[in-house]
Amino acid sequence: MRLMQDWPMTLDRILEHAYRWHGDQEVVTRTPEGPITRASYAEIYRRAKRLSSALAELGVRAGDRVATLAWNTQRHLEAWYAIMGMGAVCHTVNPRLFVDQIVYIVNHAEDILIFSDISFVPLLKEIRERIPSTRHIVLMTDRSTFARCDLDGALCFEDLIDQAAGDAPWGGFDENYPAGLCYTSGTTGNPKGVLYSHRSNFIHTLVTLAPDVLGLGARDSILPVVPMYHANAWGLAFSAPAVGAKLVMPGSQLDGRSLYELIADEQVTFSAAVPTVWQSLLDYMHGAQRQLDTLRRVVIGGAAVPESVVRRFRDEHGIEITHAWGMTEMSPLGTVGSPTRRTDRLTGDERIKQTLKQGRPPLGVDLKITDEAGAAQPHDGQATGYLKARGPFVVAHYYCAEDQELLDQEGYFSTGDIASIDRDGFIRITDRAKDVIKSGGEWISSIEIESITSRHPAVDSCAVIAIPHVKWGERPLLVVKKRPGMTLDQQTMKDFLKDRIASWWMPERVEFVADIPLGPTGKIDKKLLREQFQTAAPASAKPE
Amino acid sequence: MRLMQDWPMTLDRILEHAYRWHGDQEVVTRTPEGPITRASYAEIYRRAKRLSSALAELGVRAGDRVATLAWNTQRHLEAWYAIMGMGAVCHTVNPRLFVDQIVYIVNHAEDILIFSDISFVPLLKEIRERIPSTRHIVLMTDRSTFARCDLDGALCFEDLIDQAAGDAPWGGFDENYPAGLCYTSGTTGNPKGVLYSHRSNFIHTLVTLAPDVLGLGARDSILPVVPMYHANAWGLAFSAPAVGAKLVMPGSQLDGRSLYELIADEQVTFSAAVPTVWQSLLDYMHGAQRQLDTLRRVVIGGAAVPESVVRRFRDEHGIEITHAWGMTEMSPLGTVGSPTRRTDRLTGDERIKQTLKQGRPPLGVDLKITDEAGAAQPHDGQATGYLKARGPFVVAHYYCAEDQELLDQEGYFSTGDIASIDRDGFIRITDRAKDVIKSGGEWISSIEIESITSRHPAVDSCAVIAIPHVKWGERPLLVVKKRPGMTLDQQTMKDFLKDRIASWWMPERVEFVADIPLGPTGKIDKKLLREQFQTAAPASAKPE
Repeated sequence: MRLMQDWPMTLDRILEHAYRWHGDQEVVTRTPEGPITRASYAEIYRRAKRLSSALAELGVRAGDRVATLAWNTQRHLEAWYAIMGMGAVCHTVNPRLFVDQIVYIVNHAEDILIFSDISFVPLLKEIRERIPSTRHIVLMTDRSTFARCDLDGALCFEDLIDQAAGDAPWGGFDENYPAGLCYTSGTTGNPKGVLYSHRSNFIHTLVTLAPDVLGLGARDSILPVVPMYHANAWGLAFSAPAVGAKLVMPGSQLDGRSLYELIADEQVTFSAAVPTVWQSLLDYMHGAQRQLDTLRRVVIGGAAVPESVVRRFRDEHGIEITHAWGMTEMSPLGTVGSPTRRTDRLTGDERIKQTLKQGRPPLGVDLKITDEAGAAQPHDGQATGYLKARGPFVVAHYYCAEDQELLDQEGYFSTGDIASIDRDGFIRITDRAKDVIKSGGEWISSIEIESITSRHPAVDSCAVIAIPHVKWGERPLLVVKKRPGMTLDQQTMKDFLKDRIASWWMPERVEFVADIPLGPTGKIDKKLLREQFQTAAPASAKPE
Repeated sequence: MRLMQDWPMTLDRILEHAYRWHGDQEVVTRTPEGPITRASYAEIYRRAKRLSSALAELGVRAGDRVATLAWNTQRHLEAWYAIMGMGAVCHTVNPRLFVDQIVYIVNHAEDILIFSDISFVPLLKEIRERIPSTRHIVLMTDRSTFARCDLDGALCFEDLIDQAAGDAPWGGFDENYPAGLCYTSGTTGNPKGVLYSHRSNFIHTLVTLAPDVLGLGARDSILPVVPMYHANAWGLAFSAPAVGAKLVMPGSQLDGRSLYELIADEQVTFSAAVPTVWQSLLDYMHGAQRQLDTLRRVVIGGAAVPESVVRRFRDEHGIEITHAWGMTEMSPLGTVGSPTRRTDRLTGDERIKQTLKQGRPPLGVDLKITDEAGAAQPHDGQATGYLKARGPFVVAHYYCAEDQELLDQEGYFSTGDIASIDRDGFIRITDRAKDVIKSGGEWISSIEIESITSRHPAVDSCAVIAIPHVKWGERPLLVVKKRPGMTLDQQTMKDFLKDRIASWWMPERVEFVADIPLGPTGKIDKKLLREQFQTAAPASAKPE
């Protein structure tokens, strides 16, 4: 007995909604070719429908994997909906992965076609012979630029749209049909694929629109700095058309000045990015003496937000940032730090302390923290445990690894993070389980020491890693990159930390480096740091 | 291949989310017994779980229909989740229906148990012998009040909770399982039941949280004046716990003063009600010289909003109201009048004109207007047509009428409303199809004439109905109730309308009445008016 309508939640409906109800709304792109372009949702819808038809003519069928190797642009958006609308799977490849990893995942996914920006022609030339399942490469560019790209057998995006026989039908399949594929770039082992369904992405979209999550509406102008190849740009390529918001695509220029210009010129109200991007933007605005006029909501995730970023947004721009946490396996949003009635009454440092927590889960995300035996820990803000998640947009199995059980008896996925949960439901990530420092049987939070260190005015960035210790098992080591022209030595740094952390958390030593290595998603590569500092102490280091 | 988690969207998860993440948040009730009571979501969750267990002991099984005959209260909320959590169907009976209609729907639904407020004991006594399928009646009151209620065989709500053996399990069934049943009180024929599923109500909840729909978050204090027995209180009994908002339940006291007190005392930020309720509140505040301090969002639906209400909220309280449209068959929300980037730039009268439209559909509501042959009409703000809707929370079949096809070839349900759609996607309801006035082959909008008439300071309320006409088929007749102490005659009224409506829309005559009859859901009963004025023109009427 099913008396309400059968309306499968397929993603084609999102762009169709934008087309029907917000057809005039703009999508603005800073193209990889240079110029800024504009198109309406109505045009994008019509182009994407034609592109689906072209894909069908090229032999793409429902269920096939089609890759994108691309920045956030209008054409990427069109390719995305063209692929998913017809029932194929959009595999967003992270171009910052190592070449061998890209080859591995394209082969693992058996991508039959790749949509690529012109920036990646050299990369494609390098891997072309190593990806035999890939029958076609489509360069997402105009005809004149295409003519200058020297890639054998490649097709031009605009030709495909122009020459398509007509519109391909969209949707009409089950909502559990696969829609997207994204590989996580673990620091150990091969990347693992998360296969999103139309249903999981659609529910994620609805959940994230809410005021306490991303809070998006038709009045917004949305700048997704976070790339579409990184966990669906936190869903913004779905949620912006879902509400008919203006969408501002930054292309490949993610420096502070380029972003500032887009924000100012396109009256951006909402943006989401990792902390390092925001730091560049703040630095640019500070130097150029610029202010943000229209920006209303700044969501920061992907790594813990340094306190300095929170304070600078508040003090220099009057903006209270929103801290979020998630992961590819969660589509990606897990928690967002929107205040409750109680936490909204906090002021000053108390409020900043709350903002530094990663926030609370919306309906649709079940969370728990457990000890090593799997016993749930209390929500008292003190107890830490393995953070585990359950919900309609949380992974159950990795792609082509259905035999590998990921979930516990209650159906929860272990996120690999260590966290506490306070009485208001706010989680605080204290470490990645693999980065945790276990000293004398107790956990030391590398993230908390980093957060406090980053408050020192001479610190540009920092990382705390575990080094082996005969007596305590492990001890923390602090790696610091100084701000240009600033002086800072080990003793000054330790004196700064002295009254701010427990004495047994004090790093064994401080190492100053020219650069802190980042992994392919822009996060600090602690594995590399551990290798660097654990195997052989550098000459400059004098153990205490 | 299903690689994301299987997490059925069942409604028990909503209260469980509130319990786990917003356990301390308050639900405040003005009880039918008199006092104002407070409980937390944690208490309500635990009580509702025990109540499910008590229901199981009374023989209620999954799929059984259990009725509620009740105001918006904490106990109603507990009964609601107790019933739906265990997989039974919560049939919310509208106590304002005619007695024969209540008997009809209780028998049609075969309700095996009725939860009732003490206010309805006389009604229950009257119908008890006529509803043979009902085995138990539970009075939702405390023990001392219960002792004074003289209803044979009734059970006391608090006894059931106290004496329950333990917790009943919740959820664990398919999301397409039925959850709620609500009958529409058509003016012709028997009431028809809409059987909501867990899925349809859950998706409705997620959709309505968004900023452009209801815009609800954990900082809100929500006052649902719209009753739970009327299309799920526009979903607020789901959406408030879904976001952990404070919930303020007004019980049976819906007069302006009682509502004002709750809004002021409980710092209400959001409220939803039909226009007449808001009018009473505005009148009370005007007389008592009160202001609204915390109220941030006022949603008005269930009938077209008079312009005077829009202006008074703006001018007297600085609040821009939000106009919404929906129906029981749509769970109920269809459109909400949140501005887009373009309409947000409108000011003054232009803005009020836009506010008087019923708004635009969110993702999840597909709408179209068609002519009588079913051909879609343009979104130009001029063309009117039959408004049709499609989506995951729109009805496909009425309860026990699965053989009766309600949908057109594209799967749309005909709402029974006539509307236009403008270029911004805002619908304007011009009439109920059954109330439309067809004069010389063209439609005259009764709602628009009413809206303009209501601007006259001497008009308290009004209605425009069709009367038969030899030459034109039908002509409009205007029925007016004057404000106390004001004078107004037919000629003055017509002079007022003269430059404001097309000449051929001018009502044939104006009838002044002491009261305009309302149907059971508080809407004007035009059927009764037509009977009154069509069959025999009253002595006072002088046809022109």
